[in-house]
Amino acid sequence: MKNLLFAFLITFCLVPKLQAKDGYQLWLSYEKIEESKLRQEVGQLFSGIYFFAQNPTYDIIKEEFTRSAEGFLDQKANFLSTRDGDFKLLVGTRSELSQYLGLSQQAEIKNLGEEGYWRGPLEINGKKVYIITGNSPIGVLYGSFDFLKSIQMGEFDLNAENSDQPKVQLRMLNHWDNLDRTVERGYAGFSIWDWHKLPGYIDPRYIDYARANASLGINAVSLTNVNANAWILREDFIEKVKVLADLFRPYGIKVYLTARFSAPIEMGNLETADPLDSDVQAFWKERVQMIYQHIPDFGGFLVKANSEGQPGPHEYGRNHAEGANMLAEALAPFGGNVIWRAFVYSHEIDEDRHKQANLEFEPLDGKFLENVIIQVKNGAIDFQPREPFHPLFGAVDETNLGMEFQITQEYLGQATQLVYLGPMWEEILNTKTYRPGPSSTVASIIDGSDSGQKLTLMAGVSNIGTDRNWTGHLFGQANWYAFGKMAWNPYQDAESIASEWIKLTFGHEQTLLSSIQNIMMESHEAAVNYMTPMGLHHLMGRSHHYGPGPWVEGGRADWTSLYYHKADSQGIGFDRTSSGSNALGQYAPEIVKEWSDPTQIPEKYLLWFHHIPWDFQMKSGKTLWEEMTLHYDSGVKTALEMKKNWQKLEGQLDEERFHHVNQLLSVQIEEARWWRNACLLYFQTFSGKPFPDEIEKPEGDLEYYKSLRFPFAPGIKPNW
Amino acid sequence: MKNLLFAFLITFCLVPKLQAKDGYQLWLSYEKIEESKLRQEVGQLFSGIYFFAQNPTYDIIKEEFTRSAEGFLDQKANFLSTRDGDFKLLVGTRSELSQYLGLSQQAEIKNLGEEGYWRGPLEINGKKVYIITGNSPIGVLYGSFDFLKSIQMGEFDLNAENSDQPKVQLRMLNHWDNLDRTVERGYAGFSIWDWHKLPGYIDPRYIDYARANASLGINAVSLTNVNANAWILREDFIEKVKVLADLFRPYGIKVYLTARFSAPIEMGNLETADPLDSDVQAFWKERVQMIYQHIPDFGGFLVKANSEGQPGPHEYGRNHAEGANMLAEALAPFGGNVIWRAFVYSHEIDEDRHKQANLEFEPLDGKFLENVIIQVKNGAIDFQPREPFHPLFGAVDETNLGMEFQITQEYLGQATQLVYLGPMWEEILNTKTYRPGPSSTVASIIDGSDSGQKLTLMAGVSNIGTDRNWTGHLFGQANWYAFGKMAWNPYQDAESIASEWIKLTFGHEQTLLSSIQNIMMESHEAAVNYMTPMGLHHLMGRSHHYGPGPWVEGGRADWTSLYYHKADSQGIGFDRTSSGSNALGQYAPEIVKEWSDPTQIPEKYLLWFHHIPWDFQMKSGKTLWEEMTLHYDSGVKTALEMKKNWQKLEGQLDEERFHHVNQLLSVQIEEARWWRNACLLYFQTFSGKPFPDEIEKPEGDLEYYKSLRFPFAPGIKPNW
Repeated sequence: MKNLLFAFLITFCLVPKLQAKDGYQLWLSYEKIEESKLRQEVGQLFSGIYFFAQNPTYDIIKEEFTRSAEGFLDQKANFLSTRDGDFKLLVGTRSELSQYLGLSQQAEIKNLGEEGYWRGPLEINGKKVYIITGNSPIGVLYGSFDFLKSIQMGEFDLNAENSDQPKVQLRMLNHWDNLDRTVERGYAGFSIWDWHKLPGYIDPRYIDYARANASLGINAVSLTNVNANAWILREDFIEKVKVLADLFRPYGIKVYLTARFSAPIEMGNLETADPLDSDVQAFWKERVQMIYQHIPDFGGFLVKANSEGQPGPHEYGRNHAEGANMLAEALAPFGGNVIWRAFVYSHEIDEDRHKQANLEFEPLDGKFLENVIIQVKNGAIDFQPREPFHPLFGAVDETNLGMEFQITQEYLGQATQLVYLGPMWEEILNTKTYRPGPSSTVASIIDGSDSGQKLTLMAGVSNIGTDRNWTGHLFGQANWYAFGKMAWNPYQDAESIASEWIKLTFGHEQTLLSSIQNIMMESHEAAVNYMTPMGLHHLMGRSHHYGPGPWVEGGRADWTSLYYHKADSQGIGFDRTSSGSNALGQYAPEIVKEWSDPTQIPEKYLLWFHHIPWDFQMKSGKTLWEEMTLHYDSGVKTALEMKKNWQKLEGQLDEERFHHVNQLLSVQIEEARWWRNACLLYFQTFSGKPFPDEIEKPEGDLEYYKSLRFPFAPGIKPNW
Repeated sequence: MKNLLFAFLITFCLVPKLQAKDGYQLWLSYEKIEESKLRQEVGQLFSGIYFFAQNPTYDIIKEEFTRSAEGFLDQKANFLSTRDGDFKLLVGTRSELSQYLGLSQQAEIKNLGEEGYWRGPLEINGKKVYIITGNSPIGVLYGSFDFLKSIQMGEFDLNAENSDQPKVQLRMLNHWDNLDRTVERGYAGFSIWDWHKLPGYIDPRYIDYARANASLGINAVSLTNVNANAWILREDFIEKVKVLADLFRPYGIKVYLTARFSAPIEMGNLETADPLDSDVQAFWKERVQMIYQHIPDFGGFLVKANSEGQPGPHEYGRNHAEGANMLAEALAPFGGNVIWRAFVYSHEIDEDRHKQANLEFEPLDGKFLENVIIQVKNGAIDFQPREPFHPLFGAVDETNLGMEFQITQEYLGQATQLVYLGPMWEEILNTKTYRPGPSSTVASIIDGSDSGQKLTLMAGVSNIGTDRNWTGHLFGQANWYAFGKMAWNPYQDAESIASEWIKLTFGHEQTLLSSIQNIMMESHEAAVNYMTPMGLHHLMGRSHHYGPGPWVEGGRADWTSLYYHKADSQGIGFDRTSSGSNALGQYAPEIVKEWSDPTQIPEKYLLWFHHIPWDFQMKSGKTLWEEMTLHYDSGVKTALEMKKNWQKLEGQLDEERFHHVNQLLSVQIEEARWWRNACLLYFQTFSGKPFPDEIEKPEGDLEYYKSLRFPFAPGIKPNW
């Protein structure tokens, strides 16, 4: 095996003529079209392309056509300089194309909004052409990417009309990137932002990053860590940011930065950062003005305040609204936004951490300015493998709420595990909140359709780094892709997104497609099973969050595992019903009713809300203990199955990507076993019960698992 | 300009079919052969290749032939499985080929030693074939790379006999890579060693790294920072190291690690690391034994002790020989070596830092075991832009001395400047030491020819990182290349090496070659001029070493600039003659005589050894002050010239590499001006003299330059 691997490695490295499949091209590889009809149709369109205007965004589309014509057809895209030529493909905005469009078609397109697109056939003077249009060049760009995607998936239909528009306004990546290029919770190398070489040196990768995002409709990026450093707000750094903003602008992407609340003290020589202090307000106004001088379309600030040691308005006896509004006032004249995180908790508050965000933000409902949006994590704790939706969704009426998903797999296998997050996000978005309306879901709050909020946002914490394939694990790309698609349309299902991504990444051969889709679709449930089944949560190792640490105790209580699982000889789980912390009471009455009853609550949330005896009888008829061991074991079995199914694909895809994933699946199996063994051996010390015969027995002893140390795990600053 | 750059960027990113010239392939790109005669000859050879045996190294050669046949000829290399076929190219060791070789030829080859090679024509039964041979598979590998290189340079001669052998035994890269993947003084991203994913995941890059090194004859690598962490010596990390050692073995590369002297305390639970303590000795023996169980050909340890805060034998009243020998005894039974650094100084010793290494090591001459080699930096301070050779070379008779060059450009423009280091290294190696013999040079000590030492070493501090082009600046590759060539043969001249590298990297078109060669050959002198001309040294910014800081003072004196330049109203320079620190007295009498006289010492070393009045008359007839300003200014002018000459090459090479270098040359000009302005404005405060008319006047004021801060400069751990 080692020899085979080695033989592979020396075959596939650095070969000059072979088309390297190292993952760098993401879902934009524009592979050769094999079907002759499609080839002929696309070849025709690319033989006569006419753009109705010139602008930087159209230049980008032209480049994309040039690139894809070479890839799809090994042919040059032919751009006509006048409308007299034999045009086949017309590209322009609705107003540019107006002479060719009927009034009803114009109205239809207009309804798609600023970023929507329409593409399809059109007859001009009896001649059939194909048009890509929208209400702005960015809409046209989105339509063009959709057009190219349909070709690459082998699904392009010359006669079909396709249109779409985003349901969420701000579709945003949050980079937790430090200025020294380390990335908090980054597992794909280091930050792609090379601040030292900016503004003088522009890494070509910046452009490929923008292309990839634009192809998904992502239109905003925050470049810096929410655990913020004020240094980014210095003018010499803003000059560096400006270079990126200039590069991203034609792709429709606005740049945001994180604002450290104490910046007025750290860089303004003030003695306070009190949001009601006029010097502090002046500091921020001046700073914002300077930024807009360099970056006229600067997006605004993303802020983490009064959480995990970050400074905030509480230091001055002010609330989050006072803090956020102070920044919002500085930004408003320029059209900027404040994105204020709801991820706020403190061990000094004697309340279940689960409840703290609602306790902070519910009383402030209606107090935030209209260019403020509160960014809420999907669950109330912290991106655990599975969480019930955050109770703030539905709890406020007059506050803009945005979603924060975590694309980087901090708690979900980092970059060594294949875990497709689409199903997890779909589960959250589809969950009924029963508020504001009886049929409301998280998605219908997020996109404003039920909540009526004016400013809408979906943010994802980036999993992008300097690794050649961008995301460390090749399948991490699927999570970036799925995030983009769900931010565009939070109702799209995870399975269809997986299918798209696979076709764009590996081609649309049917058995390959269905095998990979199966692997992806079962991967999240598998990870939940071998990590934190049945509502367990926060069992990971301290600090690095790599691997299991259900025994973690000491120090800040809400950073221990014991705080969350509360295992004892009687049972396990966190009583959050009215007999316990009553975090459950923060949800709508319909939910409170169903979830308060341990026999009615979905078993996947059981231990999240209830402390349950070890011999409690589950729906399966088994005891809680037995059921728990079976969940852990089935997670491992699925991981084994995933690898077996992947190995059947050998020879059906390029060896480089096959071996990349294959190696990582072996690592995943080891890690899954490690999670199962460590957790079950540990919980057995409380349950005192034997392992059922049908599971693979946990190997090793608990002391061994407790002794493991990972001071150099990625995603953290060294702690030695 | 910005628009042009942008147009370039969107053209050259991520294009699927275009052959990306992103620098990843280094000097091994195997571009298509254009000359038809060469094409035909090489095609013939590749049509019938016979290997006399099977082993992992031959497998590598076969892969290299496969790869190069595709690149050179777009053809498959044809390997014959029996000797009956129509063989054209025979590959095997001398003993494997013995039946075809005459006795004198066998003797000739035998004389080339274990790593030498011979390649050339041979007649077998009246049929002319071509053979590549050596005394070991590694020798054959080196011969094969040389064969491929000659083809790529367009210089292959089917009828010529070529042979070579290394003059230095250990040709070694030192990685200053931390276990968290930061790289001390690394400017090309982060460490390519992904410790977290090892041993389960093997990055294909490891193999390309090994190929590149083997192609230069580099046969040893130390993986970890000399500012060492004992964690690497844990068995779980040795299992990771083993994977790399296994991968590198068939390339002839042995793995070394840095040993932290205090490891017995930190990981052995001992209370001492005293080298004469038997528990300490037992700790190391046990640790070494464990390592060799995993890595039977482990190279040994590289040690930095009692320097810059690193622990060492002095803590226990022991000397460096006692420290080194203790480790050497543990390694000797397995054939391992100790490489002990002479870079030892302390601010607690009241002596010119220049003198301290000799004061430590001269008295220990003859005391080191034979598997110990002392690794000495080229100069006595620290890799400054120009230093006179280290006085330890020639000062000891019975001690193995190895050379330590710094490939990474800590003090020479980091990764934003094109500075070819070959001329600097050539200057050092060619300098006459007058000891042990009157014609001895640094090179003749290093290679053992004059010193007679049994163990020889040339080490280079790596400039390799995760950047796609490996070295950050494309021209950093030339420094890696030149180091490898000079380690193989310390007498090879820098210009011919530059010429080779250019041909392998950009092709052998004559004007391109000569233009790039000119740029490279003048680059080092330019950098010396705009940074530290005329023997000035250690003027850089504190900690990050990025940019000028001639005003740096306070804290540890020997880490300030004032300690070294000693500028005052009278003059400038460090008196190291007998009237001063008498560091000069550590050299041979011939040198003392010449360099003691400020009118005789080469002016490039003047201020290194003398404190000279501002109006001292230089050979040019100008005053010292005038001459200094002219040097600084001429450095800037050369940088401007380099860019002008590079821009003339537009269209003669691929745009990606053209623009990469072009952008960086603009940055280099800015940085050169910054050095000149900051240093001259600062020194003017002492000289009190005006700037000559013929120089570009330094802009800005000194306070501005002093105010600049770079907390996120690469190559350091964050210091905030």
